[in-house]
Amino acid sequence: MINVAVVGYGNIGKSVVKAVLLADDMKLCGIIRRTPSPIPSIDVPVATDIEHLTEKIDVVILCAPSRSIPDTAGKYLSKGISTVDSFDIHTQIKDVRAKLDKLAKDGNAVSVTAAGWDPGSDSCIRVLMQAMIPTGVTYTNFGPGMSMGHSVAVKAIDGVVDAISMTIPLGTGIHRRMVYVQLEKGAEFTRVENAVKNDPYFVHDETHVIQVEDINEVKNAGHGVDLQRLGMSSGVNNQRMSFNMTIDNPALTAQIMTGCARAACRLKSGCYTIIEIPPVDLLPGEREYWVSKLV
Amino acid sequence: MINVAVVGYGNIGKSVVKAVLLADDMKLCGIIRRTPSPIPSIDVPVATDIEHLTEKIDVVILCAPSRSIPDTAGKYLSKGISTVDSFDIHTQIKDVRAKLDKLAKDGNAVSVTAAGWDPGSDSCIRVLMQAMIPTGVTYTNFGPGMSMGHSVAVKAIDGVVDAISMTIPLGTGIHRRMVYVQLEKGAEFTRVENAVKNDPYFVHDETHVIQVEDINEVKNAGHGVDLQRLGMSSGVNNQRMSFNMTIDNPALTAQIMTGCARAACRLKSGCYTIIEIPPVDLLPGEREYWVSKLV
Repeated sequence: MINVAVVGYGNIGKSVVKAVLLADDMKLCGIIRRTPSPIPSIDVPVATDIEHLTEKIDVVILCAPSRSIPDTAGKYLSKGISTVDSFDIHTQIKDVRAKLDKLAKDGNAVSVTAAGWDPGSDSCIRVLMQAMIPTGVTYTNFGPGMSMGHSVAVKAIDGVVDAISMTIPLGTGIHRRMVYVQLEKGAEFTRVENAVKNDPYFVHDETHVIQVEDINEVKNAGHGVDLQRLGMSSGVNNQRMSFNMTIDNPALTAQIMTGCARAACRLKSGCYTIIEIPPVDLLPGEREYWVSKLV
Repeated sequence: MINVAVVGYGNIGKSVVKAVLLADDMKLCGIIRRTPSPIPSIDVPVATDIEHLTEKIDVVILCAPSRSIPDTAGKYLSKGISTVDSFDIHTQIKDVRAKLDKLAKDGNAVSVTAAGWDPGSDSCIRVLMQAMIPTGVTYTNFGPGMSMGHSVAVKAIDGVVDAISMTIPLGTGIHRRMVYVQLEKGAEFTRVENAVKNDPYFVHDETHVIQVEDINEVKNAGHGVDLQRLGMSSGVNNQRMSFNMTIDNPALTAQIMTGCARAACRLKSGCYTIIEIPPVDLLPGEREYWVSKLV
C-alpha cells in the first residue's frame, strides 16, 4: 500500500481525495490544509502540518496554486517525502524541474512535476506523435472549456465581481475567448470590455465579452482538447493522427496526479515530467499484467 | 551516433532503412539479408551475417516474420547487440518478453519487443487512457486497412493465387472483413468463399469474399485505427477520449522501431515493451529540449 497525503482541499484536492480513495493500492492517510477542521463524510485525519499525521507518508499530492509549487514541493522533498504536482506554467517547467531534481536527489525522494493533462498527459501524446511523425506540425486545440489563467486575469479588472473565460477551439491552435463577466453595481460594461480585450492574455485572440447577472449560471468544469499532427514517417507523407477528449477537468487532473503518485514510488530519486516516466508505471499492480492485457 | 544494422529487407526493412537514414543521430552500418547483393541507390554494406560488417553495431532492427523473432533476437542479444522487433502475436508477447529478458540480461543488451503500432504505440495510448480513466471500456477499431495475418490465412487456401483481407471498423471493436481473392484457373469461387468464411480467422466476423482478376489492383498499405475509451476518472463519469490515425502502415511501423532503437541505447539491459519505456527516450537529443518544447 502507498501511503498518500493530499495537500490542499480546493477543486483539485477534493477530486484527488476521491481518486485516492478509489485506488486499491493506496491509503489516504491525511489531508493537509490551513483549516484543520474535519471534513464531513470523509473519515481521514485533517492537519495543518504533515508532522501531525501519525502514519509515515510515501507521497504527497500537491493541490496548491502553481506559483507556490516549487517552494511547497521543496519542503516535502527535503524531508524525503515524494511529491506530485500539476504545475502548469509551461515556460517555467524546465527550470522548476531542474530545481526540484536537485532537492529530490538530496532528499532521496521523487518529484513528479507538471502532471496534469496539459502539461501532463497531452505532453505524452505530443511526444508519442513526435516519435511516430518526426517531421510535421502538431496543433493543440483546447476546449471548449474554462481557462483558469484567463479567468483570473479578468477577475483582476476593476469593477468585475467574478468572471469566466471560455476557450473555444478554432483549429490549428487558434482559439476564441468567450468572456463572461459579472459586474459591480455601476461598473461600466464598455470600459471592462475594452480592458479585457487589451489585456496581454487576450490581445492576440478573438475575444467576446458578455455581461451576465450571476456568474454561477455559466460556471462548469467541462473541458476538452483535440491534438492533431500531420507529417512524415520514414520519408512517407500524409501520416495523420489526432487525440481528442471531453472531460471533467478537475477529475481528470486528479486521476493523472494519482497515477503519478504511484509512479513516484517506482522511480529513482529525482524530478520527472510525465514524458520521462514509463506509462505502465502509472498503473497499479505488476507490469506483466498490463503487458498481457493492453500491449 | 548510434550504429544500426537492419535485418531483413522486405516492406518493413525498406522503410526502416529510410527512417534510419533520415535520423541525424544514427548511422546505418549495414543491411543483413539472405542475398548479399548490393542494393541500388543505397550506399550501405549488405551482408549475410552481422560478423561481416566492419563497424561495431549498437542495435539491430529486426524486420523479419514474427514467428522467427524470438530465435533471431536471441542470437543477437547473446552477442551483446541490442535488438528491436515488431513481434505482433498479442497472446505470446508476455512469454517472448520473458524469454528475451533473460537473454538480454545475460548478454548485457536491450531488447525492445512488440514495437510497431499495434502492438506498440497503440499499446501506449491504451495504457495512458487506462491511467486517465481507470474504470471503463476501451475499444480498438482497426482500419480500413489490410490485415497481414488474415491475408496470409486466405493465401493458404487451395486454389488461391493471392489474396488481401481488408479490415473495416464497425465500431465497439467489431470488424467486417472484405476479402479479395485472385484464383487459379478452374478454381471454384464458391468453394474458396466457404473455406474463407469457415476459417478460424474469419468465422466470428462478418466476411465478404470478392473475386478479382489481379490482386495488385487492390493492394495498398494504407491503414488506420480509432481507439476509444469512455469511463470514470476520480469518481466522475462521462470522461471520453479517442485516438485516431490514418497512416502508411510500413512507414509508421518502421518509424516506431527506429525510435525504439534509440531508446534501446538508453535503457538498462533487459527486455521491454513500449509501455515500459519513457516516451521521451524515443526521441533524439536531450530530455531537457523536449521538456521545454513538448511538455
